[in-house]
Amino acid sequence: MTRETMDAAAIIAHEAALGVALDAGRAVLEAGGNALDAVCAAVAELEDDPHFNAGRGAVFTYHGTNELDAAVMDGRARDAGAVCGVTHTRNPVMLARAVMEQSPHVFLSGAGAEEFAREQGAVMVDPDWFATEERWRQLQELKARKLGWFDAGLKYGTVGAVAVDAMGHVAAATSTGGLTGKRWGRIGYSTLIGAGTYADDRAAAISCTGSGEQFMRVGAAHEICARIRLGGEQAQAATEAVLAEIGAMEGVGGIIYATPAGETGFAFTTPGLFRGRADSNGLREVGIFGGT
Amino acid sequence: MTRETMDAAAIIAHEAALGVALDAGRAVLEAGGNALDAVCAAVAELEDDPHFNAGRGAVFTYHGTNELDAAVMDGRARDAGAVCGVTHTRNPVMLARAVMEQSPHVFLSGAGAEEFAREQGAVMVDPDWFATEERWRQLQELKARKLGWFDAGLKYGTVGAVAVDAMGHVAAATSTGGLTGKRWGRIGYSTLIGAGTYADDRAAAISCTGSGEQFMRVGAAHEICARIRLGGEQAQAATEAVLAEIGAMEGVGGIIYATPAGETGFAFTTPGLFRGRADSNGLREVGIFGGT
Repeated sequence: MTRETMDAAAIIAHEAALGVALDAGRAVLEAGGNALDAVCAAVAELEDDPHFNAGRGAVFTYHGTNELDAAVMDGRARDAGAVCGVTHTRNPVMLARAVMEQSPHVFLSGAGAEEFAREQGAVMVDPDWFATEERWRQLQELKARKLGWFDAGLKYGTVGAVAVDAMGHVAAATSTGGLTGKRWGRIGYSTLIGAGTYADDRAAAISCTGSGEQFMRVGAAHEICARIRLGGEQAQAATEAVLAEIGAMEGVGGIIYATPAGETGFAFTTPGLFRGRADSNGLREVGIFGGT
Repeated sequence: MTRETMDAAAIIAHEAALGVALDAGRAVLEAGGNALDAVCAAVAELEDDPHFNAGRGAVFTYHGTNELDAAVMDGRARDAGAVCGVTHTRNPVMLARAVMEQSPHVFLSGAGAEEFAREQGAVMVDPDWFATEERWRQLQELKARKLGWFDAGLKYGTVGAVAVDAMGHVAAATSTGGLTGKRWGRIGYSTLIGAGTYADDRAAAISCTGSGEQFMRVGAAHEICARIRLGGEQAQAATEAVLAEIGAMEGVGGIIYATPAGETGFAFTTPGLFRGRADSNGLREVGIFGGT
């Protein structure tokens, strides 16, 4: 994905889809909802939209299935929930929230996670719900070209949202279909608490996307919060420092953050980062490549 | 598990088993092996020994199966590997190491992880290998008593090892059967990179065990390393601070650490912590309760 290879129609369509999710989150906050409600609303929109690699429109595994991961974290008491390998739950982010709020666990997987989803009355769908022709084509292209596991151009993508509400509480949510052609029950790093998702009212809410496993090795989302809290760094500097550390391990990615003081921002080392930002002063922006 | 409820024969048997694992790790280091080799050797012994909740002797899930999780991390370049939901691989810690060294991934799950294990020529066993009568009795007792999910007395246990070698490199490994009666594909926190297992030559190697999900929410293992590296704390103080933070969330547990400078230690808020420690100056101790 670069400015040169992405056509104008695709840019317009993706920016419109980002705007819908952004407005969903903003509407929650404007109605007095909290940060957790807002990030879940935004991510659920992105999951339902086939433009993004999460929920409907997720990439295919090597075996031709869609297996979804999601996580959510509430900065107030650092409550968290996550699921992986989900195949029938329409909105994995809402299931992650149910794990956080309705179970004694933090992290559930596969068929067991969906047994819990059914007990909770989650909206279940046929696996075909998630499948799109474009993602199927990408899997066939990957297999035909015998690409390495890390051909970043085709294979990743994660959706995430962070928010700070009027009470100064932060929350983060992340959802992904993982890598095109993933095998061996690979679990995504971006939906692991601490690696790609973290929220702490003492520091920030963080959601990450990236090409490699370096986010897990660095503990990226928790590391940014630790740098802010223990190292006294500004959120933007901490975010860029962690991306630099990931770069030294030959990883690339993008990170969004929100702090209890109301700062929001992002950084990325990929060619682009689909993103949107809004606040109560009327800011509303979406962007894909460098600058805005 | 308390000094009052554990009989003398059980204490002797567990201390002997700890000694075997301790000696396995020590032998690796004495032969010039590195920290990573040492922690894998020690944890593989503990997995094979039915006294501990990892590998053979793992607790049963709600559905009467043994599902194993393991993780390993090398402090040199912060390489890591982890598996969860393994049911046929004799030594999950060795599979975690294979994920780290032989795959482009960090974290594999379930049947997919074991497909990879077979490709790697790992030693596979019938699931009966892991089952013991005592653990089966514990599951029946749990079901009969209709205990809550968090009755800590029966239900947890994790094995782990940390080491520092002559080059000042550190490594950590952790392995567990999880919680007796666990459901819904619950993934253990102690074998998540950053939560219960972390190794960083700039700080320490950490392995955790505990009763709750608080270790994941705190990012305990990574947090200890962050406190040492960013906050300038001593390893013992950082370890105790993180246990206190977990305690404030109503969690309890035990943590072992080793630093590149050669410090080793532990702290626990449970009634006891099965543990052993050895060094090249002839120290060799095992213990279970407070003090030694």
